Amino acid sequence: MNTEDGNKFQKIYEKERKIIEPKIKNVLKGRKPASLYEPSEYILDSTGKRLRPLLVIASAKACGLNYKDVYNSAIAVELLHIFTLVHDDIMDNADKRRNKVTVHKKYDLSTAILVGDILLAEAYNVLLKDGRGDFGKIAKAFTRALTEVCEGQSLDKDFETEKSVSLADYIKMVEKKTAALCAMCCTIGALLANADDKTIRAMYNYGKNIGIAFQIQDDLLDITGNVKEFGKNTGGDLLEGKKTFLFITALQRAAGKDKTALLKVIKNKGITPGEIETYEKLYYKLGVIDDAKDSINKYTKIAVKNLKVLKNNEDIEYFTWLADSLIKRSK
Amino acid sequence: MNTEDGNKFQKIYEKERKIIEPKIKNVLKGRKPASLYEPSEYILDSTGKRLRPLLVIASAKACGLNYKDVYNSAIAVELLHIFTLVHDDIMDNADKRRNKVTVHKKYDLSTAILVGDILLAEAYNVLLKDGRGDFGKIAKAFTRALTEVCEGQSLDKDFETEKSVSLADYIKMVEKKTAALCAMCCTIGALLANADDKTIRAMYNYGKNIGIAFQIQDDLLDITGNVKEFGKNTGGDLLEGKKTFLFITALQRAAGKDKTALLKVIKNKGITPGEIETYEKLYYKLGVIDDAKDSINKYTKIAVKNLKVLKNNEDIEYFTWLADSLIKRSK
Repeated sequence: MNTEDGNKFQKIYEKERKIIEPKIKNVLKGRKPASLYEPSEYILDSTGKRLRPLLVIASAKACGLNYKDVYNSAIAVELLHIFTLVHDDIMDNADKRRNKVTVHKKYDLSTAILVGDILLAEAYNVLLKDGRGDFGKIAKAFTRALTEVCEGQSLDKDFETEKSVSLADYIKMVEKKTAALCAMCCTIGALLANADDKTIRAMYNYGKNIGIAFQIQDDLLDITGNVKEFGKNTGGDLLEGKKTFLFITALQRAAGKDKTALLKVIKNKGITPGEIETYEKLYYKLGVIDDAKDSINKYTKIAVKNLKVLKNNEDIEYFTWLADSLIKRSK
Repeated sequence: MNTEDGNKFQKIYEKERKIIEPKIKNVLKGRKPASLYEPSEYILDSTGKRLRPLLVIASAKACGLNYKDVYNSAIAVELLHIFTLVHDDIMDNADKRRNKVTVHKKYDLSTAILVGDILLAEAYNVLLKDGRGDFGKIAKAFTRALTEVCEGQSLDKDFETEKSVSLADYIKMVEKKTAALCAMCCTIGALLANADDKTIRAMYNYGKNIGIAFQIQDDLLDITGNVKEFGKNTGGDLLEGKKTFLFITALQRAAGKDKTALLKVIKNKGITPGEIETYEKLYYKLGVIDDAKDSINKYTKIAVKNLKVLKNNEDIEYFTWLADSLIKRSK
């Protein structure tokens, strides 16, 4: 893709992000009680990529609808996503998210649990508003993704205490924890537009595979990310002893002293901040940074292959650009 | 109502409870990952009154449907209810629920958050299965109740730090935290049966008012309940310094030393186990036990008044018996 096209698509993305952004931020505005809705507005007020709502809009557009027809569903998927972030941050005992203090740290545990719950409630509330497509199918796809996200988070928590996690286990976890939601976004975009089954399946597979690529990229950014752009400190996954793509691949590749060092992370359930640099260097030495990049490219290619079902070439190019820019992202 | 009719209705209730009970217990059976679904099955395996699913069934029956037509929705409302219990127990730091150790105490915080989330996901999943009535309206009523339950819980948490809570504030909180769910159960029973608007409204109001009565009775049982039947120790609300119906009314009625003693509960955010008996005696002395009983009767009467919209006398009698037996319950 040439730079000109890239710039064009970037402009479309930004334009749509700017339309959807205030709608997300204001979805709970002025509601009471303040003890519930102010912390909810606090977390909605952080500026994210809004990838998921833009997937809904792009998918619906590729199947013949305007963003105005589907923006409630677009808001719904972001609310579902933020619900998972708020609850996950409690479980991961995270301090920061998108450059802001996490809800449970800024307020308290009870507030953070309830904020997550109300965001999910509101997600269903707005999902019911567009009134297009087969609502039963849309709600089912939405609920399936919610179920998978919970299962994925549970698998991810299991990994913390499991001595051995294979790359296949990891991918299975990521399919649920991250990819299911992206797949759902593309699916409901198509469902809202009453697309045929073949298109719905293709959009589902596109979303699923960019979701997997996205998560591996996320694991990668935990090491290669720029603190300011990434919005949190690097090495966080190592501190927590997380079985990321990098860690699992490193353990497969390592021998001798390197292997002992990695096994120590499992045994101690993480490392200390002072050790981060050592382990980052080990990742580079073992070549797992390149492994991650290869995998990201692989899943992105699979994603893009599904796009041939789309009729309009510009839609194919937009989705291709989107997949490509996710690989190149720094946050 | 004579004893014979009472026994007949009790038998209907028990028969339907026995039909719905295994369906609730087995709704997540055999699913994986075990780390998520085993703790979920653990909490589903406790035997509750199953009031809410039976409200759905009774309401649908009164509007012309068989239990077979609506049992998925009946399961859905119980799952929504148990979701709130699991998350509320975390926030209230509760040790026991229905004679069992709470999820966050038996497992851990992360598990309990996720168990709540997956129960809610499954609630929507089964809600989508009956395929009767206007699904958009049913899902909206369901989601509205979810929103209100979260708001009610937030108001209840607010009460913990508020110096002064009026009885009007309390009723507003209960309308959301408890009554909204009962109202929704009766509403979706009627919606599933495609009942007319007048009937839907009447069923909503019946559910709402028995819900308020139910919560005041719950507050009352915290003092008058038998430990074994109630499933938890009495005086728990006093220990936590909760602004219950009894506490708020007591504060209104008290003067002198009694008032000082009650204000101490607010100041210290609760009492010690050794003080429970003193405060229980104070409640009796101030007459707030009778006040609670009067209020329970008042809301029950309002609930029953709505039943005149129903065509079948037996349905009216069943709902009247149900409201009446909630007043007489000991757990």
